Amino acid sequence: MILAEIITIGDEILIGQVIDTNSAWMAEQLNLTGIRVNRITSISDTQEEIINALTEASQRADIVLMTGGLGPTNDDITKKTLAGYFNSTLVFNEETFENISRLFEKRGFRMNEANRLQACIPACCRPVTNPEGTAPGMWFEENGKIFISMPGVPFEMKAIMAGSVLPELKKRFNRDAIIHKTVLTQGVGESWIAEKIAGWEAQLPSFIKLAYLPQPGLVRLRLTATGSDIAVLKEQVDLEINKLLAIIPDIIFGYDAEKLEEIVGKLLVKSGKTLSIAESCTGGYISHLITSVPGSSAYFKGSVISYSNEIKLNELGVDSFLIDRYGAVSEEVVKAMADGIRYKYHTDYAIAVTGIAGPDGGTPEKPVGTVWIAVASEKNLITRVFQMGEHRMRNIHKSALSALNMLRKEMI
Amino acid sequence: MILAEIITIGDEILIGQVIDTNSAWMAEQLNLTGIRVNRITSISDTQEEIINALTEASQRADIVLMTGGLGPTNDDITKKTLAGYFNSTLVFNEETFENISRLFEKRGFRMNEANRLQACIPACCRPVTNPEGTAPGMWFEENGKIFISMPGVPFEMKAIMAGSVLPELKKRFNRDAIIHKTVLTQGVGESWIAEKIAGWEAQLPSFIKLAYLPQPGLVRLRLTATGSDIAVLKEQVDLEINKLLAIIPDIIFGYDAEKLEEIVGKLLVKSGKTLSIAESCTGGYISHLITSVPGSSAYFKGSVISYSNEIKLNELGVDSFLIDRYGAVSEEVVKAMADGIRYKYHTDYAIAVTGIAGPDGGTPEKPVGTVWIAVASEKNLITRVFQMGEHRMRNIHKSALSALNMLRKEMI
Repeated sequence: MILAEIITIGDEILIGQVIDTNSAWMAEQLNLTGIRVNRITSISDTQEEIINALTEASQRADIVLMTGGLGPTNDDITKKTLAGYFNSTLVFNEETFENISRLFEKRGFRMNEANRLQACIPACCRPVTNPEGTAPGMWFEENGKIFISMPGVPFEMKAIMAGSVLPELKKRFNRDAIIHKTVLTQGVGESWIAEKIAGWEAQLPSFIKLAYLPQPGLVRLRLTATGSDIAVLKEQVDLEINKLLAIIPDIIFGYDAEKLEEIVGKLLVKSGKTLSIAESCTGGYISHLITSVPGSSAYFKGSVISYSNEIKLNELGVDSFLIDRYGAVSEEVVKAMADGIRYKYHTDYAIAVTGIAGPDGGTPEKPVGTVWIAVASEKNLITRVFQMGEHRMRNIHKSALSALNMLRKEMI
Repeated sequence: MILAEIITIGDEILIGQVIDTNSAWMAEQLNLTGIRVNRITSISDTQEEIINALTEASQRADIVLMTGGLGPTNDDITKKTLAGYFNSTLVFNEETFENISRLFEKRGFRMNEANRLQACIPACCRPVTNPEGTAPGMWFEENGKIFISMPGVPFEMKAIMAGSVLPELKKRFNRDAIIHKTVLTQGVGESWIAEKIAGWEAQLPSFIKLAYLPQPGLVRLRLTATGSDIAVLKEQVDLEINKLLAIIPDIIFGYDAEKLEEIVGKLLVKSGKTLSIAESCTGGYISHLITSVPGSSAYFKGSVISYSNEIKLNELGVDSFLIDRYGAVSEEVVKAMADGIRYKYHTDYAIAVTGIAGPDGGTPEKPVGTVWIAVASEKNLITRVFQMGEHRMRNIHKSALSALNMLRKEMI
């Protein structure tokens, strides 16, 4: 098995001002190439730390991928340290300079001295083109080990990885047969699932491993199978998932990297139906999820974010009597919102949400976290009430996922 | 200087299925306590990896914080390994069991065998109460070093850190005088800023360090000052920031963890004004940002997400002649949208956005990434056109930030 390590360089991660999203993406891509990531290390951008981390990683892994420490500004010493580590010196590289010039020309910007300096790289490395930015990737080899340095800006790193690094690594190393399949569930907790599927888990063949990956509002179940024949692995994993589907059919909504908003989008495209949304406490987040999917304009017509009661009355046609009698967070009002937006926006389906996101606005009868959700179609108007808890952002997030899952169930 | 290391345990990070958000939060909190995080390491949940990582970290740092590997399901071996590492055994802990029972009672759930097992912890550790979940925190001490193990679920880890770990560490160690202040800019790139402020950067006193932290749509400039007297450091940093404000006044919108949507919210509260939004290509994301701020119902009345032209005509009163003549992505239409929502929702300010988020819908005259933004008030109707690039999500994100910054500038 080919082992890789990832080293992220830069104080911004160590002082917590930046979340390391790069490593997760890189790890996933390497895994799909059959390369296992053994360790991810974040260090500061000092010469000593970089050299220590490189030395340690090269003793454990075949491939060492570095990100960060290559910006056009002068808080970066990575290149000098790399040149020293490989007993080399920094030299001006024509190919890299041309890439930087092209990029500036395309964007209509003027190059400055800092950008010109970016074309200097260690003499012993091969530059790897960065189609999205001015900091080049750099490919080193020493004692049979590969070292690749890339900038820390996520879309630049991704462009370098996808365009050059991953294809080259694939070509160089044989794949081990390893597959992952993740089952996505919504609506219940990890312990509930664990108890429900304990018997199924116990009978899994030894080459299939199960992991629970909880997230707010979701629990993902990841199956990992390793062996010699990828076709056999796929067949066995599918077989086990079919058994799982028989045990917990209601809570499984999709697989792997699928998102609820994508699944809902596909169902709408397939049926040729349209959607509108009336959001109160979720404040636009459901609409944002729906429109994050490319091509969503084919089925999504629009939304009303009715944050104030005035908008609920005037724009969604909610009867003021309902708000006075039952309150803005009630089954009666969420029904009126769903019917109102569906009628007004002329769509086949409508979602409506009204709730108390917090931290203020709760009462003894309707504490913070009380959320009413409705899904309306030509034939049905279904509602559910949830207790989403006291944390505003988690509350919004869970309400959005629950609403999308209610719509999904209504469509299948 | 007290040094800490963070170790995250679990394959989900190494195979890239989960982004490590915990470490950034922990690092930031530790930093504010005067404890420097020297290294962050992600390893898989095998006995060998855990023991190696613990051994290495304890040689470099005074405090080792671990997260992950403590869920109620059986993919976790952390506790057994920790017991072994400290030459101890797992024992049933009454205090931990009571905490778990209380939690289940509060949530109205039934305990199962997996939850009961969570009350077993190494005999040599002190349990640290987890107010948000069933996996306990564990505090070990050996040879003058502190080791703390916590669950990987973010809000559980945060509750343990904020409730117990950080206060105890503060009490135990003297603070070094270290302060960070981050200047937030919007609208220009890193290189542009670097060139513009090169003179200022060169004259910074040696105890103040500068770092550039670019993000899509933003560049943050972080100043870090270290010394013996915190009052002096604050004074000097403020002095330098005042100089910076004189050089780049237009692009600085705030400081530290402030968000544009919070700054806009505060300005609206202060002036007693209200806001409505008409979103096309941003699809609800601006409304989501605005409503992510607690208390936003005081100034935000609502939005129309006019994803289809039909909604622009019927709900925002845009003249169909304008769309026919100039196209839905045009200055004329964005103006009509802003005026339309402001008039209809009776607000003091309105934002409108129309653009081509991609990947489809571009034309030679209006390529993907073309975005028109308008801000309307009683006296003004200002518009700007942007080229946000070809990446859908970045495009949406940058458009939202640009719109909020236009509103901010209009209000100050």
